Amino acid sequence: MLVSDLETPAVVVDLDILEQNLSRMANYCREHQLRLRPHTKTHKIPELAKRQVAGGATGITVAKIGEGEVMLDAGITDILIAYPIVGPQKVDRLARLAERADITVSLDSEAAALGISVAAAQRRTKIGILAELDVGFGRCGVRDEVELLTLARKIVSLPALEFRGFMFFPGHFGVNPEERVALRNQVNALLDCVHEAFARERLPLAIVSGGSTPSAFEGHLFHGVNEIRPGTYIFNDRNTVGVAAALSDCALSVLVTVVSTSVPGRAMIDGGSKTFSSDRYQASEGTGFGLVKEDPAAEIERLSEEHGHVNIERSDWSYRVGDRLSVIPNHVCSTVNMHDEIYGVRGEQVECVWRVDARGKVR
Amino acid sequence: MLVSDLETPAVVVDLDILEQNLSRMANYCREHQLRLRPHTKTHKIPELAKRQVAGGATGITVAKIGEGEVMLDAGITDILIAYPIVGPQKVDRLARLAERADITVSLDSEAAALGISVAAAQRRTKIGILAELDVGFGRCGVRDEVELLTLARKIVSLPALEFRGFMFFPGHFGVNPEERVALRNQVNALLDCVHEAFARERLPLAIVSGGSTPSAFEGHLFHGVNEIRPGTYIFNDRNTVGVAAALSDCALSVLVTVVSTSVPGRAMIDGGSKTFSSDRYQASEGTGFGLVKEDPAAEIERLSEEHGHVNIERSDWSYRVGDRLSVIPNHVCSTVNMHDEIYGVRGEQVECVWRVDARGKVR
Repeated sequence: MLVSDLETPAVVVDLDILEQNLSRMANYCREHQLRLRPHTKTHKIPELAKRQVAGGATGITVAKIGEGEVMLDAGITDILIAYPIVGPQKVDRLARLAERADITVSLDSEAAALGISVAAAQRRTKIGILAELDVGFGRCGVRDEVELLTLARKIVSLPALEFRGFMFFPGHFGVNPEERVALRNQVNALLDCVHEAFARERLPLAIVSGGSTPSAFEGHLFHGVNEIRPGTYIFNDRNTVGVAAALSDCALSVLVTVVSTSVPGRAMIDGGSKTFSSDRYQASEGTGFGLVKEDPAAEIERLSEEHGHVNIERSDWSYRVGDRLSVIPNHVCSTVNMHDEIYGVRGEQVECVWRVDARGKVR
Repeated sequence: MLVSDLETPAVVVDLDILEQNLSRMANYCREHQLRLRPHTKTHKIPELAKRQVAGGATGITVAKIGEGEVMLDAGITDILIAYPIVGPQKVDRLARLAERADITVSLDSEAAALGISVAAAQRRTKIGILAELDVGFGRCGVRDEVELLTLARKIVSLPALEFRGFMFFPGHFGVNPEERVALRNQVNALLDCVHEAFARERLPLAIVSGGSTPSAFEGHLFHGVNEIRPGTYIFNDRNTVGVAAALSDCALSVLVTVVSTSVPGRAMIDGGSKTFSSDRYQASEGTGFGLVKEDPAAEIERLSEEHGHVNIERSDWSYRVGDRLSVIPNHVCSTVNMHDEIYGVRGEQVECVWRVDARGKVR
């Protein structure tokens, strides 16, 4: 099958770029002796997770038990669920997962630790735990070394849990390089306090897990970090360009068709919020819902559910009904999650179709 | 099963409210002799589409051929695809659909009409066509009665097409009642010109299809409109409250669990953009990604993919890990599209589970 045979909208991945992205990150981690535990929420495709592991990843990260179940069924047996698992049905599913694989979970409360401990003990299994530290993003995580140590002691004291270290998520790191250095210095000051406190307590930190795609290639600059969890790097997207990737590193795009040009100054494409997601462009003064590769002067200024409203007032192109375009989405994780399958292409050839098996695993 | 047995996040629909919403719209249409052709993109569930038809709807509206295929397989045989169908594979799928059901398609270009005509003629079938008129939203549709008449003449001249009238989408109607009246007057002035022009030409308009949920209960005030296509009314959401519904008309909410309270002033819930979608609140000065029913003082100020960041600084509640909350989403169509199934509940009883069969039908 050729790319031109694909009905639109279609999510296509350039396999050459994908392979480059995978090996660049694997090489970076190898060079800096960091364990790579890619976050598979980006692609939700077991086949790609297996490629990441085959390329040297220690294991994978997921956000939901349902994602973990899909990945385990596909044969991946070292899984970090980087999400606090709470609630009686959830902790039991978690314990059942731990009967079949090496499972680690992150959490930031005694309540969560207690729930998991009870479920794991009941099923006579063991679950690894990472305490979560907030390094400034303000989402999950305890706020300093004192609280982290208190939580760690609690985890150590509970049956069926294995305290493995801590993780953090520097989700507040933006585009500006100087700001990033300043933020990293703040994070490192906090990390130093943590390392000191745990050393005093003689509580070993087997795993110190940091990272995300925007900070991935700075992973070795965070004190004591020995594992990173980037996700987006496999495809990259409009939001990672200029932060952790170049435009030419964007492997994924959405093939769309122009379906209407009736309104002057506008062209409508057959992808809207149910194709791209409505995730915004993160760049400080950024707008638009994706980058039209063939015509960067065009701006996808608005999304209906099934229409992309393309402002073509500054464009030299003549848009005609039936034209096909390629759009790099703002946020690739959210885009892939909209689709049941994506296509792997090399040049004009469609080499493979991947089912997005963990799509919709909200629980 | 009880609601309290459901794992979160879970999309739950209050069946009493749903039934009220359905009968209110059916009664309104009966009273004003408007045909009701509900847009099923909101729920994507054949069972609910069948209820709408059983309650008096003429047929249904969909946005994508794939949605139409799902609905036809479930036995619904009068389908408007309110979307320009463009491209060789698409028009052939459309023609195949028309072999099995009464299919109407909207379009606004001769190119789209021609493509459909060729495909329908090849399969010796007939496809109904609505020309689309832009009444100010600036998405699809030709701009005035002259262009509409030119397009209609073209449709009439092409084989295998049946010109049925025109449709419009007043997507620019907002919350402000006075603005709405002014906008409606503008639309009516345009509609009057269209009716005159088509009467002069002796070109009958069997269908004049207007509406959307925000303008649904004003359908009879648009000149010559004999059909409306509301979607959201079946559930309602935060964006329709104050426009076409009251808060007590919101049938759908998302059950979530508090998973972290570590960060002062914040509580994290286990639903983010992959549960709610990132669709914004439309009210002029609105913020937030949903309404916490139990605690309206709380604000879902940010969404990560799997976390809702709830600002609880103005709240009197004490949030604890494990607490369950109900959230009314900003935009219910986008929320349902994230999920493989939703639950119908009456009081504490879960009465049914519906598969969202047309979810992911992006083509």
